[in-house]
Amino acid sequence: MLSESRVNVYGAAVGRMMQTASGPYLYDTEGRAFFDLFSSAGVCNFGHNHPTLKRKLISYLEKDGLVHGLDYFSASKNRFMDLLENLILPPTEKGRYHYYFSPPAGTLAIEAALKYARKFTGRQELACFTNGFHGLTPNALSLTGNAAKRRAAYCALPHAIRLPYEGYCGSDFDSVAHYRKLLSDPSGGADLPAALVLETVQAEGGCHTATARWHTDVLNLCRELRIVSIVDDIQAGIGRTESYFSFASLGPVWPDIICLSKSLSGMGLPLSLVMMRKELDVLEVGENSGTFRGNCLAVESAANTLELFADPSFQEIYRHNQKVLADFAQKLEHDLDLQVRGRGLLRGVVMPRAEEARQLVSQLRDQNILVETCGGAPEVIKIMPPISTDPELLEATLATFTHTLKGQLK
Amino acid sequence: MLSESRVNVYGAAVGRMMQTASGPYLYDTEGRAFFDLFSSAGVCNFGHNHPTLKRKLISYLEKDGLVHGLDYFSASKNRFMDLLENLILPPTEKGRYHYYFSPPAGTLAIEAALKYARKFTGRQELACFTNGFHGLTPNALSLTGNAAKRRAAYCALPHAIRLPYEGYCGSDFDSVAHYRKLLSDPSGGADLPAALVLETVQAEGGCHTATARWHTDVLNLCRELRIVSIVDDIQAGIGRTESYFSFASLGPVWPDIICLSKSLSGMGLPLSLVMMRKELDVLEVGENSGTFRGNCLAVESAANTLELFADPSFQEIYRHNQKVLADFAQKLEHDLDLQVRGRGLLRGVVMPRAEEARQLVSQLRDQNILVETCGGAPEVIKIMPPISTDPELLEATLATFTHTLKGQLK
Amino acid sequence: MLSESRVNVYGAAVGRMMQTASGPYLYDTEGRAFFDLFSSAGVCNFGHNHPTLKRKLISYLEKDGLVHGLDYFSASKNRFMDLLENLILPPTEKGRYHYYFSPPAGTLAIEAALKYARKFTGRQELACFTNGFHGLTPNALSLTGNAAKRRAAYCALPHAIRLPYEGYCGSDFDSVAHYRKLLSDPSGGADLPAALVLETVQAEGGCHTATARWHTDVLNLCRELRIVSIVDDIQAGIGRTESYFSFASLGPVWPDIICLSKSLSGMGLPLSLVMMRKELDVLEVGENSGTFRGNCLAVESAANTLELFADPSFQEIYRHNQKVLADFAQKLEHDLDLQVRGRGLLRGVVMPRAEEARQLVSQLRDQNILVETCGGAPEVIKIMPPISTDPELLEATLATFTHTLKGQLK
Amino acid sequence: MLSESRVNVYGAAVGRMMQTASGPYLYDTEGRAFFDLFSSAGVCNFGHNHPTLKRKLISYLEKDGLVHGLDYFSASKNRFMDLLENLILPPTEKGRYHYYFSPPAGTLAIEAALKYARKFTGRQELACFTNGFHGLTPNALSLTGNAAKRRAAYCALPHAIRLPYEGYCGSDFDSVAHYRKLLSDPSGGADLPAALVLETVQAEGGCHTATARWHTDVLNLCRELRIVSIVDDIQAGIGRTESYFSFASLGPVWPDIICLSKSLSGMGLPLSLVMMRKELDVLEVGENSGTFRGNCLAVESAANTLELFADPSFQEIYRHNQKVLADFAQKLEHDLDLQVRGRGLLRGVVMPRAEEARQLVSQLRDQNILVETCGGAPEVIKIMPPISTDPELLEATLATFTHTLKGQLK
Repeated sequence: MLSESRVNVYGAAVGRMMQTASGPYLYDTEGRAFFDLFSSAGVCNFGHNHPTLKRKLISYLEKDGLVHGLDYFSASKNRFMDLLENLILPPTEKGRYHYYFSPPAGTLAIEAALKYARKFTGRQELACFTNGFHGLTPNALSLTGNAAKRRAAYCALPHAIRLPYEGYCGSDFDSVAHYRKLLSDPSGGADLPAALVLETVQAEGGCHTATARWHTDVLNLCRELRIVSIVDDIQAGIGRTESYFSFASLGPVWPDIICLSKSLSGMGLPLSLVMMRKELDVLEVGENSGTFRGNCLAVESAANTLELFADPSFQEIYRHNQKVLADFAQKLEHDLDLQVRGRGLLRGVVMPRAEEARQLVSQLRDQNILVETCGGAPEVIKIMPPISTDPELLEATLATFTHTLKGQLK
Repeated sequence: MLSESRVNVYGAAVGRMMQTASGPYLYDTEGRAFFDLFSSAGVCNFGHNHPTLKRKLISYLEKDGLVHGLDYFSASKNRFMDLLENLILPPTEKGRYHYYFSPPAGTLAIEAALKYARKFTGRQELACFTNGFHGLTPNALSLTGNAAKRRAAYCALPHAIRLPYEGYCGSDFDSVAHYRKLLSDPSGGADLPAALVLETVQAEGGCHTATARWHTDVLNLCRELRIVSIVDDIQAGIGRTESYFSFASLGPVWPDIICLSKSLSGMGLPLSLVMMRKELDVLEVGENSGTFRGNCLAVESAANTLELFADPSFQEIYRHNQKVLADFAQKLEHDLDLQVRGRGLLRGVVMPRAEEARQLVSQLRDQNILVETCGGAPEVIKIMPPISTDPELLEATLATFTHTLKGQLK
Repeated sequence: MLSESRVNVYGAAVGRMMQTASGPYLYDTEGRAFFDLFSSAGVCNFGHNHPTLKRKLISYLEKDGLVHGLDYFSASKNRFMDLLENLILPPTEKGRYHYYFSPPAGTLAIEAALKYARKFTGRQELACFTNGFHGLTPNALSLTGNAAKRRAAYCALPHAIRLPYEGYCGSDFDSVAHYRKLLSDPSGGADLPAALVLETVQAEGGCHTATARWHTDVLNLCRELRIVSIVDDIQAGIGRTESYFSFASLGPVWPDIICLSKSLSGMGLPLSLVMMRKELDVLEVGENSGTFRGNCLAVESAANTLELFADPSFQEIYRHNQKVLADFAQKLEHDLDLQVRGRGLLRGVVMPRAEEARQLVSQLRDQNILVETCGGAPEVIKIMPPISTDPELLEATLATFTHTLKGQLK
Repeated sequence: MLSESRVNVYGAAVGRMMQTASGPYLYDTEGRAFFDLFSSAGVCNFGHNHPTLKRKLISYLEKDGLVHGLDYFSASKNRFMDLLENLILPPTEKGRYHYYFSPPAGTLAIEAALKYARKFTGRQELACFTNGFHGLTPNALSLTGNAAKRRAAYCALPHAIRLPYEGYCGSDFDSVAHYRKLLSDPSGGADLPAALVLETVQAEGGCHTATARWHTDVLNLCRELRIVSIVDDIQAGIGRTESYFSFASLGPVWPDIICLSKSLSGMGLPLSLVMMRKELDVLEVGENSGTFRGNCLAVESAANTLELFADPSFQEIYRHNQKVLADFAQKLEHDLDLQVRGRGLLRGVVMPRAEEARQLVSQLRDQNILVETCGGAPEVIKIMPPISTDPELLEATLATFTHTLKGQLK
């Protein structure tokens, strides 16, 4: 392990050699178990090696199921699309999207989405928000608020029109009216963008959360100005809040393009997906590609995950865990006077400063609980447990969290 | 399948729904078998679902082996690095590289490599070659020769210093002397680049092949001018030519950075790797990341693949297949007066024009053989069979290829 | 004249062939006189062929005064700097600036200023304002709010951080607090800029005017955040408002860099000047150049202009004309309920729409009065008479203006 | 003079305060006379304060001739265009160009020319040459070979496709065939450019000279590939070689766009001109502008200069001086075995290294002769006397030059 590049984030920081994993736990080579309270950066919303998903995956392999099939049509992709349309999409949205199984990185789903929008509109500029995060390839990174991440591009990152997210200019500020004025103003300095890219919860940016009203107004503004709306649901989606898509609970208006990745396969297998309104499906053959796009093993597992998610017994646990998180947040705010941002199973505890956040992460690790920080400083502790965790176990883990936090704040 | 984006390359072109795969064959839902004569774009050098690799993968899953472990240190990554150092690297190179398991796309390995080089040198510009291909994210794409692919960026692609590849200006032209003059000239218009990125065989660009002399001279020129040399071995590596690394047979000088992907996992699982000279390991914690970097399931399989590759019985078949390809190439050149480029198990049959290449691909498909084209027109048929194919089967398939080709050229 | 490019703004629009000029009048080849109520875009603040300035210019030529002297030290440049320091600068600012006689275009003074700021700070980004205008070369244009002008670049224009000018987000919005928050926020998406470029009156942008309080706060914010403050005084300076520099009446804080051009020579001769705090004089020999920089004939005339401006009899007329404009503005606002923006001898009459503005310009032209429009639509009539006009003549001309305006609004 | 920015090239280097000028001489405040052997960077091809030109200029001013007339049609511009068409253009080219009097800097003429070409073709990329120099604004600078000058942009300079100038790859290399191959190759990495910008003599780049054959082939290649050909005749034009336009002696093919500046006004007054084929006049009203474009005082003088240039007595001296320079070059090459590049009245003496070039400039200055260096090192002494110099005086000055050079080379 001494030969791995020091660019790694978790390797040297945690200092343990991981070997196996099951449910919410990671086990190192010495058998020590860590509770994965951030679902490995949102990739393991269904826990590690979920027994149902794992069993089906092995079965697929045993039958010589296609693993890598370029972008051929495949039984696995068809099964996934059928299940998504039938189990997840509301009737009003069925049949309205085309699917692009993009190269398997969230940032590459964003890059692909931007291409569709740019070609469709013939425009170059891209609107985005303070505190947004969308990945590390150049176009995605240009949309990212975090200065340290953008500096690490080591190249120029043009084309972003940065707008203040809801609440950034204070609660009295009519942000959507400001967007309309600025984006329509022939002398305001903002060209009409090809796309506006948003997160309903800015997970990396500090768990800032959009209201249903703002979200709906922003999507409608995009229609009014003929800007392609793109929701980056890579971290907030796949059940992370209160539904498969994070925006499903924010009103009836759906975005023009949806980007998914992370927990999509349910098993931690690399996979990304771009869903676009049919009329936006304008890229010619080969205008976007990438070797591992639509990896069939991962797609097959993604289909299995949809069945799992729709299962009533899963939904019962899922609803229970949402209540656990809501109670946890309310209690922290009430008892400790801390701000807790977020919604559903994605929460951010705002610490006084980055130093306290850093210390808390370290103390929790000593107690075998893994969390990560977010926000600009970063000063926010992100709480994002596997959504399939046994609710009692989750409560117990959060009790340890609270106890540790109290000890630190003393 | 009607809902998939029409950007797909192979879906509509082949028009079959693939379901399973084994060895060199892909099977569609109606049970029709296709011989995969281009190893699914070089991802399946070891065939599909290689029995040894598949068995070990299932076994790893059954033991709850870690699938997604962010960039924690892991038993699987350690095993892979140990095996690579001990089974593959020559004694002179052992211990000289650091490893970065990058996000799992070839293009993202290139992006990461460029970051290391840019930060190390403090420079922005990147030297590359006519007919080069390095992927579709903006920095990688800026290095790519193909105009249609670059146009499909729908954004600006700055920073490339394009040099003529060996032979591009004719066989009498001393290309390395030209590079030295241009890159050293204070008024030549080429800033000193951070890196020079090359392929030893330009697979996508039409199978142009570098000589050992040119390759050595270019790497030495990079040292002389303090330019970071990067070999993109994504398609030509992992046994595709005559050795695990494509440049291992081109002399004793090794590049500063090596990028691998495609067949790295041996099983078609998304994985990418950047190997860099220790002194180039300059990125700070978090300066490059990506959710699926170092996916442990794929890394474990990559380690298994190293063991397979080093196995004497595998090497026997591998050597045999190299001879099969060499004979095939020689015969085509002799009998049909066609130019056949490339080396090892990577060959390019140069057709008179793109039209003939397109027709041949179509006729082969009717005979259940899958190949793809490359080159600028594209006018070259790329022959890239699984390197583990039974030699007799390979000979028979190539005989069908030659027969079809002859029929078409008549 | 049929052979001139149709890119020309005034040629075909006015349709007359100009030949001579004197004071506020332009004369065409048929002897028709036009009152130049916008001082030829602010270049002729002292009228055309001002007798004193013209006489001195001829005298300089007759003595074989150096016309083009590259950037040699010259008697004329020395004379100009001495006069500026002694007649114009307040005691607190004497000796604090270095002078760069830049190539003779306002936009090139801005380009030079940005270079000083970028080298000094080592940063790339540039902060600017809604409705700002700074010229047509790429860096200056990237700072320009007007979308049509930016589109006409026909190339990418990166690096601008656009901030809302005072009042843009409403009178209740604390704009300076917003700038501080955004520019200091590690996750807000705005990198710390090299410079912030502002106009105290946004002449091209529609005559929006900054208050002394905002101006002072912005300059102080730049000091606090170590951003180079640049005032573009190309159109609002050289006596256009109430003093030689437009910001001299807005408080005691002076900007780090001042850009001047247009009326600098007093005679319409091309000249530009960059004044920078001594510590900002960081460009090495030759890092900025341009053939016609510091043209000595124009510099000599600029020195003559300083003497003219400081002359008490000139100041008397100047003060009188300021009162004429103030009365004019007040009357329009009171009698016609029109908004009149601006201050000093730079005023903008806000018409209901662009159409009315266009018509008024045309009707005034029929009455031998030349004005131009500004603002995003453009919907504002810019009133910018030669500041040396006989006050009674100015009153009479403005009476014609008001009469025509009333007729049109009926 | 201590307050001038240290970016100045000649100020501190020469260390004298210039005051007057006449013919080939500059005079400082102490009366010392310097022979201007580089015509003040090519701006004073007709010497300083040429008596005919000066007298006419004063006369124009005395009659209140229009000095600054924005881009109104004007008597002076009309007179200039008439004279150019009738005195200078060959019959085959009459009436084929439109005229854009651009903002008065050579670099701004180039920027304007590139806009026309980019809009006309809808392309972004720009082809240019090793050792080319075209000015210091971003687009012009991106075309410039000199690395130090490009570094001094302090911003990114994209879009250049750099081609080797005639002779750069050796005398055997068929450079035009290489341009054709590269610019037509779908996988060569060079997008089809909007324009190709060239100098017939690369003055700043070291006085490399194109042959008539190469020049003609390049212009024809541009037609073949529908690339706009732009000749930057800013330094080599206006009589500097053997005719008003430097390319007039290189064959019958004329470029699509011609850029002029420097000596255009004949009197050192800032002026620039873009001549474009009528069909290229595609910019809409206002798409390019700039306050001082078409400054009428300078245009009037430019018209006077055309009359002067066409005068038989002037032509006699001009032809004589060309012979003087040719003899000088031949002698240096023969006697001192030094390479002398260039043609007409633009010559470059190639010194062994930059150090010797620097020393020679210094020694000549001590003998009251001003020259400047060029080339990448810079290692070339540029000889560019006023073309109207008395031939005997020129011979005497060159004799001093040769004597000094011999002394130094000893």
